[in-house]
Amino acid sequence: MKPGNPHLTEDCRAVSAVLQRVGDKWTVLVVSKLGGGRMRFNELRDAVGGISQKMLTTTLRGLERDGFVVREQFPTIPPRVEYELTDLGRELLQPVTALADWARRNGERVVRARARFDEECG
Amino acid sequence: MKPGNPHLTEDCRAVSAVLQRVGDKWTVLVVSKLGGGRMRFNELRDAVGGISQKMLTTTLRGLERDGFVVREQFPTIPPRVEYELTDLGRELLQPVTALADWARRNGERVVRARARFDEECG
Repeated sequence: MKPGNPHLTEDCRAVSAVLQRVGDKWTVLVVSKLGGGRMRFNELRDAVGGISQKMLTTTLRGLERDGFVVREQFPTIPPRVEYELTDLGRELLQPVTALADWARRNGERVVRARARFDEECG
Repeated sequence: MKPGNPHLTEDCRAVSAVLQRVGDKWTVLVVSKLGGGRMRFNELRDAVGGISQKMLTTTLRGLERDGFVVREQFPTIPPRVEYELTDLGRELLQPVTALADWARRNGERVVRARARFDEECG
């Protein structure tokens, strides 16, 4: 396809939107954890581990914005808030889990390559 | 695992390193194109489409740094430079292609969800 082709532009914008979201460690971790079913905010924070309240709020809002997660608030005292993957979120789970597994298995090779490169070419 | 566990930290650092690289549209496109075999710089630029020379240079250098691509320069006049996936790069191809395919098929749903959210909550 030639540059300037509107289909290419649409395609790129859509692909970018997904990769932008997925190229974030916390997003990937939150999506994997929610793969087990709906969770309350604090439950999710404990499950992810090492994430601040602020970062978890931001991550969840981004996932909600992109249609991957729904937030439900129950009128209890104190209010209970639960998060769940949407159909789109559940569909994303499979390729994201495959990539995260790959990253866990091979990430150390990337870290080593990076250190070697910086030593030789830095 | 508890926060502060050194294995968790190592793991996160490694996973981050991979996701950081993969969460970039140009990187994903370049890796997919190189999946077809080694290519010269200009060939690659035409294949990717819409990428500037500067951005392609930066993308390739990042991929080289992380051990996904090797660069070979031939002593011709003018010098010929070719790029090829390493073993690590070829292994990355499968999960990255799966994610890019998903993004191409579903990206439009994400763009629509985002527009809806911004209209309701912006």
